[in-house]
Amino acid sequence: MAENEFSESHRVVYYETDDTGHLTLAMLINLFVLVSEDQNAALKLTTDDIHSLGVGWVVTQYHLQVDKLPQIGDQVTLKTRATAFNKYFAYREYWLLDTEGNQLAYGEGIWVTMSYATRKIATIPAAIMAPYGTEPVKRLPRLPRPEKVDQTATSVAKPYTVRYFDIDENGHVNNAHYFDWMLDTLPAEWLRQHQPVDVRIRFENEVKYGHQVTSEVAHSHATTTQHTVKIGATIAVLATIDWQPRR
Amino acid sequence: MAENEFSESHRVVYYETDDTGHLTLAMLINLFVLVSEDQNAALKLTTDDIHSLGVGWVVTQYHLQVDKLPQIGDQVTLKTRATAFNKYFAYREYWLLDTEGNQLAYGEGIWVTMSYATRKIATIPAAIMAPYGTEPVKRLPRLPRPEKVDQTATSVAKPYTVRYFDIDENGHVNNAHYFDWMLDTLPAEWLRQHQPVDVRIRFENEVKYGHQVTSEVAHSHATTTQHTVKIGATIAVLATIDWQPRR
Repeated sequence: MAENEFSESHRVVYYETDDTGHLTLAMLINLFVLVSEDQNAALKLTTDDIHSLGVGWVVTQYHLQVDKLPQIGDQVTLKTRATAFNKYFAYREYWLLDTEGNQLAYGEGIWVTMSYATRKIATIPAAIMAPYGTEPVKRLPRLPRPEKVDQTATSVAKPYTVRYFDIDENGHVNNAHYFDWMLDTLPAEWLRQHQPVDVRIRFENEVKYGHQVTSEVAHSHATTTQHTVKIGATIAVLATIDWQPRR
Repeated sequence: MAENEFSESHRVVYYETDDTGHLTLAMLINLFVLVSEDQNAALKLTTDDIHSLGVGWVVTQYHLQVDKLPQIGDQVTLKTRATAFNKYFAYREYWLLDTEGNQLAYGEGIWVTMSYATRKIATIPAAIMAPYGTEPVKRLPRLPRPEKVDQTATSVAKPYTVRYFDIDENGHVNNAHYFDWMLDTLPAEWLRQHQPVDVRIRFENEVKYGHQVTSEVAHSHATTTQHTVKIGATIAVLATIDWQPRR
């Protein structure tokens, strides 16, 4: 495996799945973040090491493509690659594979380092990237953006209050929880009958403990949903999800 | 190991912990249920096998004693024993151990089988217990009950709506989510500074998808909290938790 790649095995267990027994999108994101944190740890880049440089990693965008969500008891492989970076952005890829190496899901993410002092994007410290053994590049791949929200479509909105247990060690809302808020606006029966196949999501503004957010959903197509998570009038997250009927 | 005992190893990962990096109570319950489901599977008692008898396991009561909650990256051992049962009740024990075999947490649970047809408690089918190799007993250990709620104490109440992703494969709210609702009523700073040491919880009535519940908390002592989760005027869950300052 290349120096900038890392993989580990994982068993899908019951609390990672929905009531149909399939891995949830929220847990898919958790597993992708897990394998990248484990890669950092293997390269002796612990969260504490990164914090000591005065910055923390923050994701700004994901693009996920889902072939098939694994089920309770399935053994899977989580794989990631720190593919490319420039002064401000890092492009990372993720794979979820079955035991034969077939792709179950693929993800791309754009990450930035945020300064704890200014809460703004900071130049990526060289010490963070050096262990990956890759050189900076001029241009990074661009991820597809969420659709522009169709203001004429009928939408459903639900309120959610950020809970203590939504917050991770970095003091942010764990990104996976956005998926719970976004998808919970869809009817249970519809969720049981459909699986996500393509997800474009952008994180625009940080959500904090105690915030009340509104999660809005509209269908731009029978099998495409547009999601907006807002704090008051401020957009926190925008996402578009393509679905297909579960086989 | 005795025929009715089972254990497995587990690594505590970031999405199982709170913002102090310690395993959450909700996840402790998830892990205890996981090791008992894995024991069932090892004895060829899958969830499907149990369902085919027209019943499902439902927990009515837990008693947890916590010595020390493990942190991100810690390797732990999950252990369980199907200790004793009679016509209607099964008594199960659980342990969370560190790599040296020291106890981190201990749990006891009382389980019943609920009939899918009547939604009432059913005689435990002999086929479910036979693989454990234990004989029925007359008397089971009694677990300590939650305190009687002090109606004169000042309480705080928060509403929670049951989400699609709170429901597990059995169509019930995953029990672990009750802990999120109960503990989220306490201030974040207080939760950061205290760890639970003793938890008595009784599940009185089933909570379903779409229900709105109210989670109420009162302090009967500086380090004892009384919790009630209600659906309207109906009590769903009662619990008492003793805490100590985190060292």
